[in-house]
Amino acid sequence: MAHHDQRVRKTTVTLADGRELIYFGAVPERPADYPDRRQLDRVQVHSQARRDQLLGEWVIVAGHRQDRTFQPVTSQCPLCPTTADSLTEIPAPDYEVVVFENRFPTLGATDPDDGREGDQDGLLVCRPARGRCEVVCFSPVHTASFADLTPDHAATVMTAWADRSAELAAQAGVEQVYCFENRGEEIGVTLSHPHGQIYAYPYITPRTDRVLQSCASYRRRTGRNLFDDLLAAEQADLRRIVLQGRHWTAFVPYAAHWPYEVHLYPRRRVPGLAELADEARAEFCELYLDLLRRFDRLFGRPAPYISAWHQAPVHYGGDEFALHLELFTIRRAPGKLKYLAGSESGMGAFANDVVPEAAAERLRQLG
Amino acid sequence: MAHHDQRVRKTTVTLADGRELIYFGAVPERPADYPDRRQLDRVQVHSQARRDQLLGEWVIVAGHRQDRTFQPVTSQCPLCPTTADSLTEIPAPDYEVVVFENRFPTLGATDPDDGREGDQDGLLVCRPARGRCEVVCFSPVHTASFADLTPDHAATVMTAWADRSAELAAQAGVEQVYCFENRGEEIGVTLSHPHGQIYAYPYITPRTDRVLQSCASYRRRTGRNLFDDLLAAEQADLRRIVLQGRHWTAFVPYAAHWPYEVHLYPRRRVPGLAELADEARAEFCELYLDLLRRFDRLFGRPAPYISAWHQAPVHYGGDEFALHLELFTIRRAPGKLKYLAGSESGMGAFANDVVPEAAAERLRQLG
Repeated sequence: MAHHDQRVRKTTVTLADGRELIYFGAVPERPADYPDRRQLDRVQVHSQARRDQLLGEWVIVAGHRQDRTFQPVTSQCPLCPTTADSLTEIPAPDYEVVVFENRFPTLGATDPDDGREGDQDGLLVCRPARGRCEVVCFSPVHTASFADLTPDHAATVMTAWADRSAELAAQAGVEQVYCFENRGEEIGVTLSHPHGQIYAYPYITPRTDRVLQSCASYRRRTGRNLFDDLLAAEQADLRRIVLQGRHWTAFVPYAAHWPYEVHLYPRRRVPGLAELADEARAEFCELYLDLLRRFDRLFGRPAPYISAWHQAPVHYGGDEFALHLELFTIRRAPGKLKYLAGSESGMGAFANDVVPEAAAERLRQLG
Repeated sequence: MAHHDQRVRKTTVTLADGRELIYFGAVPERPADYPDRRQLDRVQVHSQARRDQLLGEWVIVAGHRQDRTFQPVTSQCPLCPTTADSLTEIPAPDYEVVVFENRFPTLGATDPDDGREGDQDGLLVCRPARGRCEVVCFSPVHTASFADLTPDHAATVMTAWADRSAELAAQAGVEQVYCFENRGEEIGVTLSHPHGQIYAYPYITPRTDRVLQSCASYRRRTGRNLFDDLLAAEQADLRRIVLQGRHWTAFVPYAAHWPYEVHLYPRRRVPGLAELADEARAEFCELYLDLLRRFDRLFGRPAPYISAWHQAPVHYGGDEFALHLELFTIRRAPGKLKYLAGSESGMGAFANDVVPEAAAERLRQLG
């Protein structure tokens, strides 16, 4: 089902330490002309998935990551194109969109011993955390942001997301593929160059697991799909709709967890990015860029945000889960952030100080 | 089952706007001598609990809280005792431990209209968010912290926690009582005066709900209690034990979510603070103060932490749930915080860069 846009060229090369790097788009014209000239040791990845028996979920323990690159000065940005003075992660002197395996990945255990801890017969259960972590550079321009991209350039990112979602889903041991962007120091971003990430998890994530349970229970009760009915309820209510396209609806959800949170759903339910029709993919870019620009206008400075593509797991739930994007900022007012403190981090009990109807009204006005 | 320590005096007074304030301990001697001399309007609390149908959980929407007190200068600290120059939340000129209803509560809807939004028959379901939010001042000393308290003073806090847990559990509509402390600006604390909070939720929190589901499923499978067996497994393994007392065990859990995270369990399982035996209460204070001081030594400066008392819900699960405290810091290295970014906030998938066995070893050495 991989949907690879024929207009976007894709070229895979290998970095000095064996990691894959994939150029998407017209630039560079001949990627093979730019080999990685660095001396890099192969990274050992010691990642375990450990079972939290009380919460019924996996936690990744990744001890090798403590020393990763941390806010380097701009001249050393590893996500800029390579220059005469600086050999970066991207060997070419220019690119449109590029994806590569993270040098400090959370997932992708290289050591089978990572599954040997614990008492596998009892309650202390672990296994090597396989899977893969990739970095997506949205633009070669260090000071740009996703919101600065042209719709055509954003469409190349979309192609990369869909391509990676399909390819990673086909890898052994991958159960869920997650494309996301963390933006802003306030969210802990260590590299300011515009980029996102892709996690290919070796398990269904706790949040998706809960959503699929809700879908199953709703199906048993009503015979219907929960996502379809929720989208219909939001469309009927109207008060929280931010943008309506021909193919997409953007709304602040009724029970938003974050001060400014928008969910973007395609009108026709599909399980993942690879299954989106061409017209829906094209329209998404326009609406999404519009939304990001509204977010940046909320408080007169770039919004710290998390943008998250929710897709069906690879082997389960594709008939019920609805692909959608969730975008939210942790800024609740000028100079004030929403922190996940005792109630949220301790009990999972969220409190939102911005009324969703008011948030939607604000976002509509910022058009 | 309220366990009120007869040695600790408790006096309840009423603040100018009708809120309750309760002194615990020897000071002040005659609380009634200190009436609240401020002019305060009654606060209107507009709090809704809205149902997130996908996650199957309630979210509080509390629009009235956006303008609450934010990091005032010290001379205006509302948690210091009242002086000739400054009328604070605490009318007395001195106190040992004091608890009062939060003036800007997340919970405790005063307006029945807060349950009228949504389409109650369909998927957009809400109700007034009843319950109560209290503030616990641990000490009159503005620059102190919990770790500075004497064991006797900490025992008075413990008495206050147990008293409030029992009293709030008895209030109509309260389903779970949660005593916690957020410490440090890094965690979003807006008042630096040493204090904690108590939330009396009108529902079982999402995290406790999941834990009780795990307990039920473990009971069905094995006929045993999950908490008992997990504590036994940690005690047998030894590698993550930080402190062992006669009544309490402190350990880094096998699948810790946070860089430095310690769980403190009483040896004899009880559902809540009010049911703890006297000897266990006394020993807790010693171990907890020791632990907090170790946390502050981790990185040579006060640790930003969340300390969370997990108790059984009021009307459900008391036979399975085990009272315990979870203490964790979000600092993972000097100058580096653990952020809940895309994987955690988007997917609920935690990654921990500090290996639990190494965290426990570090904490043992800091004694």
